[in-house]
Amino acid sequence: MIALAQVNTAVGDLDGNSEKILDFADRAVEAGADLVVFPELCLTGYPPEDLLLKQEFTRGSMVAMNKLAAGIGDIVAVVGFVESDYDTFNSAAVVSRGEIVCTYRKTFLPNYGVFDEKRYFGAGAGSVVLDLGGIRVGVTICEDIWFAGGPVEEQVARGGAELVVNLSASPFNRGKHSYREQLVASRSMDGPVVIAYVNNVGAQDELVFDGGSCVYHPQLGFIARAPRFREDLLLCPVDFGLLKSVRMLEPRFRYSTANCPHDSITVCEIEMPARDSAVTSIAAREVAPGDLSPVEEIFEALLLGLKEYVEDNGFEKVILGLSGGIDSALTAALAVEALGPANVVCVFLPSRFTSEQSRGSAYQLADSLGVRLITMSIDEVFKSYLTSLEPELGPDAEGPAIENVQARIRGNLLMALSNRYGWLVLATGNKSELSMGYCTLYGDMAGGFALIKDLLKTQVYEVARYINDRAGRQVIPVEVIERPPTAELREDQLDTDTLPPYDELDPVLEAYIEQGRSAGDIVEMGFAPELVRRVITTVDANEYKRRQAPVGVKITSRAFGRDWRMPISSLARSWTLDI
Amino acid sequence: MIALAQVNTAVGDLDGNSEKILDFADRAVEAGADLVVFPELCLTGYPPEDLLLKQEFTRGSMVAMNKLAAGIGDIVAVVGFVESDYDTFNSAAVVSRGEIVCTYRKTFLPNYGVFDEKRYFGAGAGSVVLDLGGIRVGVTICEDIWFAGGPVEEQVARGGAELVVNLSASPFNRGKHSYREQLVASRSMDGPVVIAYVNNVGAQDELVFDGGSCVYHPQLGFIARAPRFREDLLLCPVDFGLLKSVRMLEPRFRYSTANCPHDSITVCEIEMPARDSAVTSIAAREVAPGDLSPVEEIFEALLLGLKEYVEDNGFEKVILGLSGGIDSALTAALAVEALGPANVVCVFLPSRFTSEQSRGSAYQLADSLGVRLITMSIDEVFKSYLTSLEPELGPDAEGPAIENVQARIRGNLLMALSNRYGWLVLATGNKSELSMGYCTLYGDMAGGFALIKDLLKTQVYEVARYINDRAGRQVIPVEVIERPPTAELREDQLDTDTLPPYDELDPVLEAYIEQGRSAGDIVEMGFAPELVRRVITTVDANEYKRRQAPVGVKITSRAFGRDWRMPISSLARSWTLDI
Repeated sequence: MIALAQVNTAVGDLDGNSEKILDFADRAVEAGADLVVFPELCLTGYPPEDLLLKQEFTRGSMVAMNKLAAGIGDIVAVVGFVESDYDTFNSAAVVSRGEIVCTYRKTFLPNYGVFDEKRYFGAGAGSVVLDLGGIRVGVTICEDIWFAGGPVEEQVARGGAELVVNLSASPFNRGKHSYREQLVASRSMDGPVVIAYVNNVGAQDELVFDGGSCVYHPQLGFIARAPRFREDLLLCPVDFGLLKSVRMLEPRFRYSTANCPHDSITVCEIEMPARDSAVTSIAAREVAPGDLSPVEEIFEALLLGLKEYVEDNGFEKVILGLSGGIDSALTAALAVEALGPANVVCVFLPSRFTSEQSRGSAYQLADSLGVRLITMSIDEVFKSYLTSLEPELGPDAEGPAIENVQARIRGNLLMALSNRYGWLVLATGNKSELSMGYCTLYGDMAGGFALIKDLLKTQVYEVARYINDRAGRQVIPVEVIERPPTAELREDQLDTDTLPPYDELDPVLEAYIEQGRSAGDIVEMGFAPELVRRVITTVDANEYKRRQAPVGVKITSRAFGRDWRMPISSLARSWTLDI
Repeated sequence: MIALAQVNTAVGDLDGNSEKILDFADRAVEAGADLVVFPELCLTGYPPEDLLLKQEFTRGSMVAMNKLAAGIGDIVAVVGFVESDYDTFNSAAVVSRGEIVCTYRKTFLPNYGVFDEKRYFGAGAGSVVLDLGGIRVGVTICEDIWFAGGPVEEQVARGGAELVVNLSASPFNRGKHSYREQLVASRSMDGPVVIAYVNNVGAQDELVFDGGSCVYHPQLGFIARAPRFREDLLLCPVDFGLLKSVRMLEPRFRYSTANCPHDSITVCEIEMPARDSAVTSIAAREVAPGDLSPVEEIFEALLLGLKEYVEDNGFEKVILGLSGGIDSALTAALAVEALGPANVVCVFLPSRFTSEQSRGSAYQLADSLGVRLITMSIDEVFKSYLTSLEPELGPDAEGPAIENVQARIRGNLLMALSNRYGWLVLATGNKSELSMGYCTLYGDMAGGFALIKDLLKTQVYEVARYINDRAGRQVIPVEVIERPPTAELREDQLDTDTLPPYDELDPVLEAYIEQGRSAGDIVEMGFAPELVRRVITTVDANEYKRRQAPVGVKITSRAFGRDWRMPISSLARSWTLDI
């Protein structure tokens, strides 16, 4: 039997992570497993980023891995760790009888999107196949299975592997889980070989890891699936006969060594104790997908991302401003779901421009969520700013300068409460705003965590509706969802005074930012050239704001985080508008 | 004769950059040069970052390069551009008679520090040597000459190169220029071969490129040197005999192909017109270094970095708060030097805690710099905040929460003026503060550009003294330099209430951040374990603040910018304090 230990470990916490790994290994031994597999870099947490440039960290990982190996009981364990040798490697240690019997070094290092692995790691030059008492098991790490003709096929064709384990730390974005399952299935059929895929779970800064570990058999399909967004020890009774049977299958392609740069393959023989044959009697059968709907997985990712950021950074409570609008309402509802109502403090910060509807909605929402609501008018403070600024701006100043003052007063008040009580400020802006710069630096952008920064406005509504549907009641009052969006920084202001309607804006933003399409391509998709020109120019011009935004949960395939590295100084874009 | 065109091009401005390149090519033709060499990626500007992921940009670069080639006159030109083929390459186009006759693709792609070149580019697989009417000229790009046994030696040993040109975009940090010259000399002697090194000049976001192009002859030493921190067309009379003479020298090492992954070397023959022999009569002789002192080069880098950020982002004027302290004084003095006094607006924002000395210094400084000084007391606004916050914080609130309110009022007022008049806000914090989190998010950290964010406090004093020495007068009043630093956010506050004295703090910060040393190593250097523990723990805990800081000029080998990618969520550092 194999055990897939979908554990949640924390970046940098070698001691705590070691304990957790030992605990899961013990549980796997108790369950009678022969082999337990952990996620990529689970010992150090993923991604350690520039901690990897510290020798004391990479040395620490080596020391911790050796100590950990000595503590692992009667089972073969495969554990992701940082290996420090003539270079640094993203490695898997194979542990048996208290010792590291061999290591496999990740071969394909992703250096795109949020990934910088070539900044840190050397690429593995050799392949590893374990011989566990006659069963051949290949070892791969994450990216190694993302392309055909890589280490999996090599381990099957040259190393006789019947099972390949893959240690992953594959961050969530919407729709990625089903793509990953397709990948696992493809590599399995390419082999042919059984693949046991173990993914990380948890969150680290902007990244969420959604688990969803699984075992795929090229004939039977998925024979085991772990839940998503939470820890799990997935036990899969893969018996000897089932593994050997894959040898009878024809590979989908003829294997060529051209794509795999390994110059050697090591077979590591590990003596296995005779096991009770009970496990071999459980027939492996296909497991139905327990998949989440698109909105459910976004919801779960937001909760996990927030919860872990709060915990990992030593907070208990969060604070946020409620405006009566949808963005802050959704942020509050998610925070309550993640942390409980006692840990969410809301502040209503009305001004002369705040409508009665907004006030009503804010109170109703706080009531519905069961959270504490502090009300603090910003009008007196605003007046004192106007007085101070009058000599410079004149007596009847208006426009963005004055509007932004209000947003920044709110930011300052929230930060004062945060500084006083140690509550984490949640910024409430969405991706549509952040894309277009329709937000105030140090105002509504202020905060330690911008929970919904990667949700387009239309997705904000979608998640809000889901929360209500799920609860079977108006957790978020329907008026909040239905009213036209407004920043209420001047009389009768509407978002559409400044922005295109969101149902026109958001598809253009998605095409430009997430899909990386050019202006010409987007016009060809059917959008008006004027709209496209306006959106792209505005997005480009607002890079400086995004650079100072707090981190938040990555939901799309391209968030404004590590996967968006645009220059700020780049006004003259003579090439950009091919329309 | 060869011409080194040390041009300043802007990221993304293909049209403007093309014009500038043509202009320099024309000037090189007029000067009678046979060959003109431009910096790395000068056509697109460097670094284009994620613009390189846009097909319309890489296609645009191809189109612009072809158009540019057609416009270049009677000279051989080597121009850095983005080449789009089955992959994207960081390439040099060799242009003759209006056509691109061949391209060389950069082989060694830096993917460390501020560099992400493996995110964008494929590595070149072939080497290129030009045969210019009998003279063999190798072509390399930046990193290609940073290691022994690379393309330079290959082009000499296998391609018979007598001259190797290197197109660079090597960002400034203190001390790097002399290291670069040593590199050029080393590769030249390794060859042996004459090396013509052409570096980019200008600034892009946090990076400054300091020029300093040069030509090195393995026997004669530096036979030409361009100025630093400004554009130049460096003409170097390298005659045929001088080049051929390098063939008589012994290589320093025996060349092995082991380090250079090229699978081919192309010799590209280019017919050259018979030149007037006048140029060959000028004897090349060694040129003395016109090098800047350590503080001079920091000063020049700060000026160039600020000037370009302001221009490239469409600003004319900057605004900053003067506190009467050294950081804002230095920032103001630098801004005046870079932009002129008419383009610098200073604001004095006193509170109840502001001393008469601070007021005097601020006025004296504004007077000395000849800049406009707006005075705006924050006391009334501060009072109104205290009133609003009283129900939550109590009547006699004190501590960081209340102190930060003041800093954020200042930030808000500066931003209001910025928003109203389109002035760029300069943040004035230094690296010692930013390292220790001794700064207020959205307060003194607010701004579009943090000019001195990579200067430790002790370096702030150094540059301030240099400015006074250089001017031969107290540009910055000596009281400002000599008074003990204070944030003046409460009665009788001193920086040393919270921080170790800067002369103890800064060396520890430099060892930890810039040199990447561990706690144990720093203690071994002679610092007290308690100090080291305190500093490291505080630096680590304040990552969240740095993540929201504005960009600023990189001065050290490790700034808080693209070369510092630390996780925020990483509290549990069981490995970090090996003391």
